[in-house]
Amino acid sequence: MRIVVLAGGIGGARFLRGLKAAAPGDEITVIGNTGDDIHLFGLKVCPDLDTVMYTLGGGIHEEQGWGRAAETWSVKEELKAYGVGPDWFGLGDRDFATHIVRTQMLAAGYPLSAVTEALCARWQPGVRLIPMSDDRVETHVLIEDAEGRRAVHFQEYWVRLHAEVQAQAILPVGAEDAKPAPGVLEAIAEADVVLFPPSNPVVSIGTILAVPGVRQALAEADAPVVGLSPIVGGAPVRGMADKVLAAVGVESTADAVARHYGPGLLDGWLVDTADAAAVAAVEEAGIVCRAVPLMMTDVDATAAMARAALALAEEVRG
Amino acid sequence: MRIVVLAGGIGGARFLRGLKAAAPGDEITVIGNTGDDIHLFGLKVCPDLDTVMYTLGGGIHEEQGWGRAAETWSVKEELKAYGVGPDWFGLGDRDFATHIVRTQMLAAGYPLSAVTEALCARWQPGVRLIPMSDDRVETHVLIEDAEGRRAVHFQEYWVRLHAEVQAQAILPVGAEDAKPAPGVLEAIAEADVVLFPPSNPVVSIGTILAVPGVRQALAEADAPVVGLSPIVGGAPVRGMADKVLAAVGVESTADAVARHYGPGLLDGWLVDTADAAAVAAVEEAGIVCRAVPLMMTDVDATAAMARAALALAEEVRG
Repeated sequence: MRIVVLAGGIGGARFLRGLKAAAPGDEITVIGNTGDDIHLFGLKVCPDLDTVMYTLGGGIHEEQGWGRAAETWSVKEELKAYGVGPDWFGLGDRDFATHIVRTQMLAAGYPLSAVTEALCARWQPGVRLIPMSDDRVETHVLIEDAEGRRAVHFQEYWVRLHAEVQAQAILPVGAEDAKPAPGVLEAIAEADVVLFPPSNPVVSIGTILAVPGVRQALAEADAPVVGLSPIVGGAPVRGMADKVLAAVGVESTADAVARHYGPGLLDGWLVDTADAAAVAAVEEAGIVCRAVPLMMTDVDATAAMARAALALAEEVRG
Repeated sequence: MRIVVLAGGIGGARFLRGLKAAAPGDEITVIGNTGDDIHLFGLKVCPDLDTVMYTLGGGIHEEQGWGRAAETWSVKEELKAYGVGPDWFGLGDRDFATHIVRTQMLAAGYPLSAVTEALCARWQPGVRLIPMSDDRVETHVLIEDAEGRRAVHFQEYWVRLHAEVQAQAILPVGAEDAKPAPGVLEAIAEADVVLFPPSNPVVSIGTILAVPGVRQALAEADAPVVGLSPIVGGAPVRGMADKVLAAVGVESTADAVARHYGPGLLDGWLVDTADAAAVAAVEEAGIVCRAVPLMMTDVDATAAMARAALALAEEVRG
């Protein structure tokens, strides 16, 4: 079976690990969010692609969920000693090597999709990982604080400001002119199932959907599209999705997120058993909905979620 | 007193440490060789400038003579895991940070001299360190081996091939079009003394002399020019200077090196006591020569060498 997954960072990567366990013989294509990408120290950093690659390739820092295991921090210490910032973004030495290789390949003229494939040749993630676009798309967040009203890079909002300042709008800068990377539309068209992991619906999956052509390809695809709620019991399972949902006027509930995606996009939706009461509202909106445990506590629990999503896809395919 | 020193890497840096001890109140300007500079992994690496900066700034790996103390090697390990080369050049994580900062500043449009000054703001080497030129000059070495006759970057010849292949010529590529960096000619013109440390006469000091205007400025300067022999007892004290001396047709003897620089450039020359027999030949060539211990075994011994060089400068100034 050909499964296509739209993935952000930590949530997407952990879900994919469960999916691989649940569907070992299937062909998985991951369309990765690149709206979080940032240039730091002259290097191109792709946090979501790397989190997927490191997690599935066995190099991730497990507890942290991002960055490398057995990481060292000498480069960061030295940059600080030079007084060169920013210092709020955690780039370890092993991680730096990835960005050095990527930047060098990009400078040599390779598109990001080819670079990602080359990096994956080492990591062997067991999925085909494609960036949503080879073009630069950067999620900016419109905020207002003591320094005034301004747009900051998503990483600055998320990592430096801890999403503590109210987000007034989410701006996927460059998205309207971006083209899907080679293989993105084809993978969707040829998919047997499309899954939305419990990734951030606004700044992860929402950014992928903002690339012209992707939303339409999903709507036109034969494959059922099934999503898993990142909101459990009225709060994000991890991260600060509630902050960016508020910015786009969506309540932080399992059913509001389903309605935000909408029945034109979603065929099926899984909510956590804690949100079983939301099933009716989702179905009323025209999306088949089931309540199953949605806490990715370990690979087994995550594989069960993936099996439930695949089962729901079969059901809605009907 | 204003002292100008033309310096390569390890030998120059160690001599400068002794000179600082010998002349604590004096103003030392170092014109650093950049012919060894190399682009690695998309980063600009300046081995000689960094060796001077780290040595005088207290960050050098003492035993090794190059690179950083308390270094870690995660980036290099990772690059190897990605299969990205070259792997024969030793770039540690702390060192990488220097190259990242430098490359970023160069990309922002700062000339190498301004970048070097910025890096030195952290290291406080206690000297003014100026690259010989802001223009790219790269020493290539013409070799012939099983792969045929070809020119390789100096670092490839020196570090990867360990200077074991015969060098047929030394080519300072780009030198003829290079301009001295701001301050180089002025420092020479205003100097009270110019010193050539026991650096490599061909690929360190020779490359600096290949920048148009430098040799003439030295010849026209009021200041006496005094050098210290890097050859002791017929062999280089360290490094493989004999290999590159052979390539330019110069014997590896203390007096042959003095004659290679020539009386038009050198006013005084120090040879090691082991080479006392060479004094007459050097003086016959028109260069005042003295024999003193020239082994830089520690800072005290090196300071004594620096004092001997300054004393000889006073003598020839006469």
